[in-house]
Amino acid sequence: MHTLNLLKTHAREIFAAGIAAADPFQAVSRVLRLEKDALCAGAAALPLIAGAKVHLVAVGKAAGPMAAAAESILGECLGEGLAVSKYDHLWPLGKVQLLQAGHPLPDANGVAATQAVRDLLTRAAADDLILCLLSGGASALLPAPAAGITLAEKLATTELLLGCGASIQEINCVRKHLSTIKGGGLARLVAPRKMLTLVLSDVVGDPLDVIASGPTVADPTSFADAMAVVGRYKLLQRLPLAVRQRLEQGCAGQIPETPKPGESCFDGQLVQLVGSNSQSLAAAAAEAKRLGYTPLVLTSSLTGETRQVAAVHAAIARELVASGQPLPPPVCLLSGGETTVTLRGSGRGGRNQEFALAAALGIGGLNDLVILSGGTDGTDGPTNAAGAIVDGTTLLRARQLGLDSGRHLEQNDAYPFFAALGDLLITGPTNTNVMDLQLILAGKSAP
Amino acid sequence: MHTLNLLKTHAREIFAAGIAAADPFQAVSRVLRLEKDALCAGAAALPLIAGAKVHLVAVGKAAGPMAAAAESILGECLGEGLAVSKYDHLWPLGKVQLLQAGHPLPDANGVAATQAVRDLLTRAAADDLILCLLSGGASALLPAPAAGITLAEKLATTELLLGCGASIQEINCVRKHLSTIKGGGLARLVAPRKMLTLVLSDVVGDPLDVIASGPTVADPTSFADAMAVVGRYKLLQRLPLAVRQRLEQGCAGQIPETPKPGESCFDGQLVQLVGSNSQSLAAAAAEAKRLGYTPLVLTSSLTGETRQVAAVHAAIARELVASGQPLPPPVCLLSGGETTVTLRGSGRGGRNQEFALAAALGIGGLNDLVILSGGTDGTDGPTNAAGAIVDGTTLLRARQLGLDSGRHLEQNDAYPFFAALGDLLITGPTNTNVMDLQLILAGKSAP
Repeated sequence: MHTLNLLKTHAREIFAAGIAAADPFQAVSRVLRLEKDALCAGAAALPLIAGAKVHLVAVGKAAGPMAAAAESILGECLGEGLAVSKYDHLWPLGKVQLLQAGHPLPDANGVAATQAVRDLLTRAAADDLILCLLSGGASALLPAPAAGITLAEKLATTELLLGCGASIQEINCVRKHLSTIKGGGLARLVAPRKMLTLVLSDVVGDPLDVIASGPTVADPTSFADAMAVVGRYKLLQRLPLAVRQRLEQGCAGQIPETPKPGESCFDGQLVQLVGSNSQSLAAAAAEAKRLGYTPLVLTSSLTGETRQVAAVHAAIARELVASGQPLPPPVCLLSGGETTVTLRGSGRGGRNQEFALAAALGIGGLNDLVILSGGTDGTDGPTNAAGAIVDGTTLLRARQLGLDSGRHLEQNDAYPFFAALGDLLITGPTNTNVMDLQLILAGKSAP
Repeated sequence: MHTLNLLKTHAREIFAAGIAAADPFQAVSRVLRLEKDALCAGAAALPLIAGAKVHLVAVGKAAGPMAAAAESILGECLGEGLAVSKYDHLWPLGKVQLLQAGHPLPDANGVAATQAVRDLLTRAAADDLILCLLSGGASALLPAPAAGITLAEKLATTELLLGCGASIQEINCVRKHLSTIKGGGLARLVAPRKMLTLVLSDVVGDPLDVIASGPTVADPTSFADAMAVVGRYKLLQRLPLAVRQRLEQGCAGQIPETPKPGESCFDGQLVQLVGSNSQSLAAAAAEAKRLGYTPLVLTSSLTGETRQVAAVHAAIARELVASGQPLPPPVCLLSGGETTVTLRGSGRGGRNQEFALAAALGIGGLNDLVILSGGTDGTDGPTNAAGAIVDGTTLLRARQLGLDSGRHLEQNDAYPFFAALGDLLITGPTNTNVMDLQLILAGKSAP
């Protein structure tokens, strides 16, 4: 028998298992330990760490804990190391030097950090291995305008593209062709040295060429594609002159293309996803199973307007209770991704709290059911909560406290609502980010 | 092995099975035949048709075929009969008289039809049985303002409530207290005679007290609730005087309440759902299983902005292809309900075609997958299509024809898009309506 409190406790445990699977220190440790064990047994699965020194480049919001894991596992094998993270993302490190730079807007410290990374790679011996640890934010933290282009000109180009409604794919295509690092540029700098890249994904669908702008991955797009984007939005005459000239020279074949799939610079280089929304969903599903719920993963690529996506989840939850479909309880339906809140009011909250509140409006009065929405970074919007948990009594309890559920949703003001109800999901900062997890947990009541 | 064409054919077959389950003639026949067989065997499951004459009152957009089924099965048992449907919803009937009235706006013909129904019930003997067949639209087709209130005053009240943003539940609560038929009024007129009500539901969640305004079902709301709604929107002074007086008299206990649950007028009366979105989903799921797909019903109560709900379905479809979750193909995920399109453009289409187009944008390039969205009435928006079918090649094929998918969606212009692609779902009018069905069908390609 599942009381409401037990369901809530289980929901928190399942969510916690999802976060644990994305812990950057653990994720990197897991892979490097396997690699090291294999090495000791003389049969490295990834024959990259064999031999020579390993130099470390860690970039992103999780660079600190990811670098710490490498220090811990590699020990004496570790040669030089640089970690680049955003301001105030401090982390105790030994041999590895921690640099801080601007995010989300790149700044001069980022340019200096990029130069430091470049110097490290240049110093490395030909048979040294590079271990590259990437997490969300790496793109802004490692700005590398191509020769002749200033950071300001690159930023202005991004602004122009954003302003005319270009998609993120289109913007990335252009930016990769204005950078010496993005779109496989780092792979070319490292070659012919070997490199292992471990990636913590904060992008829906985990496209390796998009996460951190794919510095160690082949770029499927060309200068011609970039020019087509510029043409589509009639921007050619409005681009900074140096940017326009570079694109024109690229199209004329006067400067090299970004590295393409199959290019020799990728020989001896390997990219591996060590943490992602999918992996966290799988870990959460395993925990749900352990707790006696049949797990069912719906999707790891939720996008869209938060309250609408939440309403679909509420509809699925209603069906669970009404007909025992798609599966009879006890059951745990899991989904993940990153939805978007269109701000209407001036309240406090975040997309996960808004998700929970919108879902609550669709499950009023239903028994043996909870819905949880939480951000794996532990910080939902500008609040100290990761998200919230709701159930069939949420609306009634709110009314008893004099809270107008509909109005709190209208005002994007979910935080005080859930604070008053005691249904915030609080984890503290988790130092990771594989986007959001949503759970629908349906139990069995007493017969 | 499932080719794309086979998947599309199967999707159409599964959708057709869903529509067939909601066919009003078949739905009523099924139940009455069972009842008649039981009667012949001397063991009527519903001991209502036993004995005396059966008089028929059929109201709603499917009144014609529902009445025809009663004529066909009951034969000589059938006494008098009235069917009330909207203009141009003609149907060949024998003994039953077909009346036509205004819909969605009630008119004088509706008031006359209501009087004819009332007269029929008054003439019926005390031991006669009333067979009541309800379908969508019945509320508008059978207007019955309470004594002292005109139809115009009742309509003005609805307008006021709509204008201040009252919910449909709130509006129904008020309207039931201004009517002699809605909210159990018909049950009270019929009592102490026996009555069997068969309902074809066009309301999300199938709430019997909401479908057709629940004329034969107890009303859980009171005059005090209706007054609370009026107070909440500060409408008391703006209501037509007769309406205000009725509500005040009701609250003062000077006029009878609507019939409440357990009230004696419901003795010997039975209400049964003979067609609904859930039942159509179950039939579609059975057909999917017969065709070799594992069926999984997600929900029968989808609501929300069409393109957003479609995007969630696309995300679930991507997961199917990417990881074989929630279930490994061949699989058929089913959902139903009624979404809403916020008009942005001036194109042609309907919510199901818009759903399909929005879903197509989320599954470009994926193999062994189709998504279908169709209205069970066969008429999606002001078009001759029920909906459309999309797959991973839809966007590419559109591009080859010079069609801009994003632009067609932006303009709510899905009809010409799918007409050009040959991917409209055409069934013709089905004479039924249990809202919309959505299918995600994933097959297995050649190994």
